[in-house]
Amino acid sequence: MAQPVSFTKVKISSSFWDPHIQASRKESLPLIFSRLKSYGTWDAMRLKWKKGDPGVTPDILWDSDIGKYVEAASYALYHEKDPEMEAAVNDGIDMIVGAQQNDGYIGIYHTLVEPGKRWSSLAHNLELYGGGHILEAAVTRHITLGCPENDEFLEAMKKYVDLIFKEFGPGEGQRHDYPGHQEIELALMRLYDVTGDHRCVSLAQYFIEERGRTDPPREGHAWDIAARARGDDPDTFFPYYWPRPRCYWHMQAHAPIREQKEIVGHSVQAMYWLSSVVDVALATGEESYLDTVETLWKDMVDAKMYVTGGIGSVHIYEGFGPRYDLPNETSYAETCAAIGIMFLTQRLLKVRVDAKVTDVMELALYNALLAGISLDGKSFNYDNPLATVACSHRRSEWFKVFCCPSNICRFLNSLGGYLYGTDSADSTLRFTVHNYVGGEVTVGKSTWVVDTQWPWHGRTSLSVKEESEPIILRLRIPGWAKSYKILLNDQVTDHEVAYGYASLPARTYTPSDIITLTADMTAEYLIPHPLVHQNRGCLAIRRGPIIYALESVDQDPNIPDLRLVRVDGNAALVPVETAILDKPVICIRARGSVIEPLPEEKASFGQKDRVAKPVPERSVDLTFVPYFAWGNRGPSDMRVWMQESSIRG
Amino acid sequence: MAQPVSFTKVKISSSFWDPHIQASRKESLPLIFSRLKSYGTWDAMRLKWKKGDPGVTPDILWDSDIGKYVEAASYALYHEKDPEMEAAVNDGIDMIVGAQQNDGYIGIYHTLVEPGKRWSSLAHNLELYGGGHILEAAVTRHITLGCPENDEFLEAMKKYVDLIFKEFGPGEGQRHDYPGHQEIELALMRLYDVTGDHRCVSLAQYFIEERGRTDPPREGHAWDIAARARGDDPDTFFPYYWPRPRCYWHMQAHAPIREQKEIVGHSVQAMYWLSSVVDVALATGEESYLDTVETLWKDMVDAKMYVTGGIGSVHIYEGFGPRYDLPNETSYAETCAAIGIMFLTQRLLKVRVDAKVTDVMELALYNALLAGISLDGKSFNYDNPLATVACSHRRSEWFKVFCCPSNICRFLNSLGGYLYGTDSADSTLRFTVHNYVGGEVTVGKSTWVVDTQWPWHGRTSLSVKEESEPIILRLRIPGWAKSYKILLNDQVTDHEVAYGYASLPARTYTPSDIITLTADMTAEYLIPHPLVHQNRGCLAIRRGPIIYALESVDQDPNIPDLRLVRVDGNAALVPVETAILDKPVICIRARGSVIEPLPEEKASFGQKDRVAKPVPERSVDLTFVPYFAWGNRGPSDMRVWMQESSIRG
Repeated sequence: MAQPVSFTKVKISSSFWDPHIQASRKESLPLIFSRLKSYGTWDAMRLKWKKGDPGVTPDILWDSDIGKYVEAASYALYHEKDPEMEAAVNDGIDMIVGAQQNDGYIGIYHTLVEPGKRWSSLAHNLELYGGGHILEAAVTRHITLGCPENDEFLEAMKKYVDLIFKEFGPGEGQRHDYPGHQEIELALMRLYDVTGDHRCVSLAQYFIEERGRTDPPREGHAWDIAARARGDDPDTFFPYYWPRPRCYWHMQAHAPIREQKEIVGHSVQAMYWLSSVVDVALATGEESYLDTVETLWKDMVDAKMYVTGGIGSVHIYEGFGPRYDLPNETSYAETCAAIGIMFLTQRLLKVRVDAKVTDVMELALYNALLAGISLDGKSFNYDNPLATVACSHRRSEWFKVFCCPSNICRFLNSLGGYLYGTDSADSTLRFTVHNYVGGEVTVGKSTWVVDTQWPWHGRTSLSVKEESEPIILRLRIPGWAKSYKILLNDQVTDHEVAYGYASLPARTYTPSDIITLTADMTAEYLIPHPLVHQNRGCLAIRRGPIIYALESVDQDPNIPDLRLVRVDGNAALVPVETAILDKPVICIRARGSVIEPLPEEKASFGQKDRVAKPVPERSVDLTFVPYFAWGNRGPSDMRVWMQESSIRG
Repeated sequence: MAQPVSFTKVKISSSFWDPHIQASRKESLPLIFSRLKSYGTWDAMRLKWKKGDPGVTPDILWDSDIGKYVEAASYALYHEKDPEMEAAVNDGIDMIVGAQQNDGYIGIYHTLVEPGKRWSSLAHNLELYGGGHILEAAVTRHITLGCPENDEFLEAMKKYVDLIFKEFGPGEGQRHDYPGHQEIELALMRLYDVTGDHRCVSLAQYFIEERGRTDPPREGHAWDIAARARGDDPDTFFPYYWPRPRCYWHMQAHAPIREQKEIVGHSVQAMYWLSSVVDVALATGEESYLDTVETLWKDMVDAKMYVTGGIGSVHIYEGFGPRYDLPNETSYAETCAAIGIMFLTQRLLKVRVDAKVTDVMELALYNALLAGISLDGKSFNYDNPLATVACSHRRSEWFKVFCCPSNICRFLNSLGGYLYGTDSADSTLRFTVHNYVGGEVTVGKSTWVVDTQWPWHGRTSLSVKEESEPIILRLRIPGWAKSYKILLNDQVTDHEVAYGYASLPARTYTPSDIITLTADMTAEYLIPHPLVHQNRGCLAIRRGPIIYALESVDQDPNIPDLRLVRVDGNAALVPVETAILDKPVICIRARGSVIEPLPEEKASFGQKDRVAKPVPERSVDLTFVPYFAWGNRGPSDMRVWMQESSIRG
């Protein structure tokens, strides 16, 4: 057990992270706000829209867009003043509070567009998802303001939550239903954290328990019951992103929680759900929940996760596919799903401090997640392919479903909350460092200073500004490091390793003490599991936590197509310090080759005994960039897994 | 030039095709009719629906569903009486005629649901697509009834067409717009065939010419203009299947026809469009159209077609992806797109009798198209993957977009029209055989009998029932045949070969003459183009026109997953006569191997220098089934391209 150290106690000062965080504040958030304004999303919360008005009809998603902007900006404002952003946040809050109906309801769509149909399509219309995001916004705003006693926004949301306490539950006259897209469960648990109101836990648990249950007195699956009540026929009615009727698994509702053995369905939903399941397990002591979380987590990490930490391999439904089926060009690997991994790993680390968990957190953070925002903060990836062809993927300033941009800003401005944990061991304070990010953190009575060049160099030093109480320092040893060294004041120091974390003996640190961890960041080749047929005979490259990609913009102009490039698994991988759009990065150089198809053979297939000839191959220099940095320099192709040349002989 | 011989002159009698055609008549069409009835589609044409009625709101697609059923059943009834089907067709026709508005309009959606909004969303709402299908139904019904003088259905559709002649065109007060999903163009050209009304050609040409044009006096792209007129903002409004705003290429409207150089967008739309472009080129002499058709055809066949003849590699928008990007598990390869290849090749053969075209027609026919219907006719594929994992694909009795089932029935019951061509060469009648299907065909004054075991055996014999006029017999030599032989009365006969077709000298054939073509059908391995990275190091198997697939249901139970199977490119491919669900087929047996991942290595990727060990491999017998026959025996996995074992060494 280790409680995460709150973002309020962490000050990031990192040559790596600061520019990303600054870009999110100075570019992304203003851009998102202006897009929400111009599209009509923002002002829809003023409830002026009427049927027949020109322009876009308010969408059920809009509450969440407003909520996520307000939340992300609240985090940003906690760290740095910005009067314009402050005004926007206050306007947003005033609108939300003003939009509350007498009974507590808040929701643009069901107030304006379909007022009689509240809660009628929970499984696919994101009504409680929107409610969850404005509730999270209120909780975050409350915390960033220092938890004031009179918080109008939080009070409004408490009234909203009172309504859903009344509306949903096992009682007679209550709705026996649950949200399709999990989110309110997470939000309720965050409200519980600040209010201690145990009804939040009960309702979150009700939603978790009810999900997928069909046993009497229920008359079938909640989806079917709600569909029939609306006048839809569940034999034929289903959302366009379901492959066929009754794909309950898409929302993890095909079976009750304790019966689920494989991670399936929408990947963002799955992460939000499992995060809330851990929260509820910890709040209630319901250990059986943790068994399910552990089973689904292992299934995901072993068989359904990309080498970038991305999850969700099926584009059409934004979700998990079969085990070991990891297509590169159509990987979904949604930015929000990588953020969901942050939520889940943050909670798993409360249960068990295990570097296997933190390694995944770090992998997703530096790769799948960070690829979701451009280096300048002005454009975003919704999905994150592992390879592109014909420059068919590009970052965008706008998506009709606008979830990822504000979500990544929300995450970047709360990154401090994902770095450290504290608990006590034998009554001694224990300070755990999960991720190595430069800055300061307050633990107990002292401030720790973390100095690191991570992820480019493996050396991190820690020191205290004031003498500490006796404290056990626990440092994560990255699973990728083939060797590491921990020094206290330049001397090798005793430590015990458990679950990939090194614990130093309890000690009272003084400002003259310096602890350093050095992890070997030698670049290396990765190979695929034989079942991942899309990567047969391929290699990928990793250095420290960074996964690399070949991007066409960096290559020899004589390479006409990255699909013709072959890498040599015996070639040296040479790190090179350079910069991409002013961002200092380490690229990797290696020798490889490019094959040349015979010009007369054009068809995508041919007869083996007629056309099989040795394909000419010539040697080339290849440059690999950090995966997160791809797609920042105009149209370009990219590839993470590259065919090994020795395969072709 | 060779005009196709009409289906009305061809009687199929084929041990291969008859069961498929019978299944479509006895099982598929009754099933489709009952689904249209129970879903509400069929009776919607009675125009009784009112806003607020329970059940599904009529959809813009429903006219096409009714039209395609009526057309498919009309073809079936031409060949075989069926009083129930006849009654259904007549009911359908009565409904359509009765649904016609005073001004000629027919269309359920815009008559009932959005009566004021006719023609306002042509690009994405399929209004003229529906019109096209009911027009095609009327033309087909007219032909199958022997072109009667008083044909109420055809007269109603002429009145409908009069309305669109008035509504669309370059004149002032006319709409300068065109359909998103091409179909009305094809239908107009079919109406022209039976009426000779040249206004049909002019309007089809107008739609073709207008597509993608933005030059003055046009004020931008037709999509944008229509969007704004509706009150939608083209900066943000777009259908869910477009990746982003302004993906005009999805409907082949990104550039005027003569400027298009690459085949893009929705694959069914592209095929229907190019088919109509050939029709209009032939009717008008506009040769520049044929240049575009040729360019896009070559691009498709070389770089965007699967080994099965399937087209459309991008699931999310049902269309063409980048060149040589042909994912197997997510291949779209829509059944309707394979049918579209039939339409296009049938027309290309009018322009040039070229076995390169017919080879593609045959490939798509026996593989991509025929896989779209189960052997018993009771279920269908909408998309046709080339590989599946975890049995994640299944045939279905029903799709919300129900286009493929009726389309494949329509095709199977008009198959006779795709087999033969006639023209004259130096004033002598020339009879061309494109595809080898048993049965009879009337050419000139005689009936030819075709006897063949195609596609299982390469020998076809032809004879006449009555003495013929002097006639040039022209036979296609399949491109896959490594050798062939043509005998006249058991003697080698002189012939000239041009464009892969063998022409025999003009001759008056008598009933005692027998011409035989024998084409070598030895099974062989196919290899991928090096740019098709999904198939790196893989082999496929073909025998004659049939592409084979490994299906898990046939394999050694010790093979846990088809992804672990390796084939040996030097192993003998042994044809075995067998049956699948009573259907006689030839399967292929070959030795191969299966690798066994080490149980302790579970992650989808690992560190090369830590886990790279020789993977144990053991020898196994493999059975390959015809691709079209897969998925008929319960849940099963399937794979067309298999990794070659020698690659792994």
